[in-house]
Amino acid sequence: MSDTNSLDALIQALRRLPGVGIKSASRMAFHLLQHDREGAQLMAQALQQAAATVRHCDLCNTFTESEICSTCLDAQRDGSKLCVVETPADQAAVERTAAFRGLYFVLGGKLSPLDGIGPKDIGLQKLFTRATSGTVQEVILATNFTAEGEATAHVIGEALKSRGLKVTRLARGVPAGSELEYVDLGTIAHALVDRR
Amino acid sequence: MSDTNSLDALIQALRRLPGVGIKSASRMAFHLLQHDREGAQLMAQALQQAAATVRHCDLCNTFTESEICSTCLDAQRDGSKLCVVETPADQAAVERTAAFRGLYFVLGGKLSPLDGIGPKDIGLQKLFTRATSGTVQEVILATNFTAEGEATAHVIGEALKSRGLKVTRLARGVPAGSELEYVDLGTIAHALVDRR
Repeated sequence: MSDTNSLDALIQALRRLPGVGIKSASRMAFHLLQHDREGAQLMAQALQQAAATVRHCDLCNTFTESEICSTCLDAQRDGSKLCVVETPADQAAVERTAAFRGLYFVLGGKLSPLDGIGPKDIGLQKLFTRATSGTVQEVILATNFTAEGEATAHVIGEALKSRGLKVTRLARGVPAGSELEYVDLGTIAHALVDRR
Repeated sequence: MSDTNSLDALIQALRRLPGVGIKSASRMAFHLLQHDREGAQLMAQALQQAAATVRHCDLCNTFTESEICSTCLDAQRDGSKLCVVETPADQAAVERTAAFRGLYFVLGGKLSPLDGIGPKDIGLQKLFTRATSGTVQEVILATNFTAEGEATAHVIGEALKSRGLKVTRLARGVPAGSELEYVDLGTIAHALVDRR
């Protein structure tokens, strides 16, 4: 439709969202224009506000609006334990367990040579500086259990061990609440090896 | 996270999109902030632009940026045939077939008493005025084949027939390319009744 350039531009812009194709983008655009113009304005403001104010914590690299995030500033947390995660979403997942009271380092990605993502892109130097600053005694690698997450954990682990730090990895095993019959072979094999 | 109000606001705003829950909204927000701030700005602009400029065609009610949309202005189209659809997306679907060269009327919804959507909310008076203005000879009801779409078609059909107009409905039948074995019973029954 040649006389709806704004609509076409909106559909194209919405397609930049992860997991949103042309059909979903059209549905979203039609919904906003037909039923929720207030939501469209609100979203525009939220996008601009977030893009302008959200930055990375100087210490742990997570999203924050200050120089140092509230987690890093929290004096009640145990600075001797540093948990390395891939994304702020992963950090939020670990936080929800309430099982960890140490500090974090957020990589903001994972090593992925095929996509051209190397050590510099995920702030490894910043991590090494922080981990070897003296207060950290244990680094817990909580990258994802995917091929790239495992490789990232391996690279970081080797580098930190060579600097004399204690390095641990999240336990691999059978998920809580699952029945063995339906658990994949690789997971059961790992759970056998790591039995305690 | 108390120090990421802008991030939280963005996640809440993205949840207003149809089919987007808290997990998808978080993933979208993290993606934009981590990898595509340019996309976030672009989306903000597109949202504001579209919310400000996209309006409804005075004649057919579809989305346009002018008073009258380009389809209604197109002198090559057959003004004696008027196709009634629920949404601009449905109109686009009919247009893509290139099998219809008449004009459209976009309801912008369907009759849905349970949701409080009555004849006024879908512009039925505007449709009746247009259909009975003299040029229209046939009204083709192309609302969806859902319970509410069928009810809407029935109401419109009865009203226009009582005004002496020819009213037709899209054919119901077996979809192109499908095998009878996998077509549901209701569809086959309709295809039998409407056989030709």
